[in-house]
Amino acid sequence: MALAYDGAIQHLIDSFARLPGIGPKGAQRIAFYLLGVDDAEAQELADAITEVKARVRFCDICGNVCETSPCPICADPRRDHTVICVVQEPKDVMSIERTREFRGVYHVLGGAINPMANVGPQDLNIPKLLRRLSPQTAGDPDDDSRSGESVAAQGTEDVQEVILALNPNIEGEATTTYLSRLISPCGVKVTRLASGLPVGGDLEYADEITLGRALVGRREA
Amino acid sequence: MALAYDGAIQHLIDSFARLPGIGPKGAQRIAFYLLGVDDAEAQELADAITEVKARVRFCDICGNVCETSPCPICADPRRDHTVICVVQEPKDVMSIERTREFRGVYHVLGGAINPMANVGPQDLNIPKLLRRLSPQTAGDPDDDSRSGESVAAQGTEDVQEVILALNPNIEGEATTTYLSRLISPCGVKVTRLASGLPVGGDLEYADEITLGRALVGRREA
Repeated sequence: MALAYDGAIQHLIDSFARLPGIGPKGAQRIAFYLLGVDDAEAQELADAITEVKARVRFCDICGNVCETSPCPICADPRRDHTVICVVQEPKDVMSIERTREFRGVYHVLGGAINPMANVGPQDLNIPKLLRRLSPQTAGDPDDDSRSGESVAAQGTEDVQEVILALNPNIEGEATTTYLSRLISPCGVKVTRLASGLPVGGDLEYADEITLGRALVGRREA
Repeated sequence: MALAYDGAIQHLIDSFARLPGIGPKGAQRIAFYLLGVDDAEAQELADAITEVKARVRFCDICGNVCETSPCPICADPRRDHTVICVVQEPKDVMSIERTREFRGVYHVLGGAINPMANVGPQDLNIPKLLRRLSPQTAGDPDDDSRSGESVAAQGTEDVQEVILALNPNIEGEATTTYLSRLISPCGVKVTRLASGLPVGGDLEYADEITLGRALVGRREA
């Protein structure tokens, strides 16, 4: 019996099934969708994958993904380089940009402390963050982030505040606590995102921890 | 503000978001996953897409996707070429193969009659099905499916039964009725899949139409 598809189809299904959020059925659906579209559209997807691997790198300053280093945000003189928002992943930068409430710059850790997954502070992009907070090390010869194109950013980075914008879960909280203790001695103001009721939510359906945080963090109306 | 990612990343996200079952968040997650894996793994996915478009075609006999025509099932002399199971899509062939209950051959329609989506009988792979049921047209000069490599299959296709295995929904039922009326005059036995309770299901949660079908189709215990 033929319990697997012919070579190329099965290989494509297997390749898609390895991606996050795609199961065997979804991978099969995508493979047949690609079989149905014209060659140019399928080739565009294949090229987009090759392209992204060839062109995308990490910003030497903030660790965000970008095609130029420093990234457009780090290189933008109109942004406030005295406030650094620390996030776990590059996609979190985009989430905060969409709020249109933040005009500072970012620092991407590349994860959060998670002993279960064997991720410790040494696996995160923390040393570069500390160097950004201590400008006297700007001349450090092995610190590429301060050389060349980043001069504009360098001149303006006299950091006043670090906003810890990590995920509100156990790993994020652990990382927030760790970074807060690490950064506070530098004499920089360290803040974190507010916890509370999600806007548009319903008091009745809020979990007790969130509701408790909202009570503790109450403000004058 | 940077509300979109740098060129190549955004292009990859957009390309993935066009695939079925993948939303903008899922596409973003996949794009960052691909950024994180090594180049070879990403390239393997890109190549799998290119490869499948280059190598996969439709079987001249049954319309299934394959890399050789006739497909391995149509070319297999150990299969029972007197029983044709008619399905909507190539993936349905795999579903039936997995049951290990069917030793015959297939015919893939490429869809079902759906007036809402402007799919009529003329859009389905029906003419080739009728030709398989009427071997006297085997010499038809514009019928490629009977020439060359398919000789083995040709000799054995004296069809006794057509099993209509379409989806148990409105479009599938309409197509089943249409094909049943079309094929019956050929003097071939036409059957359809049984409707009834799904195995492992619970009587309490069966919808009334399914339960009604199970009653009507009851068998001796």
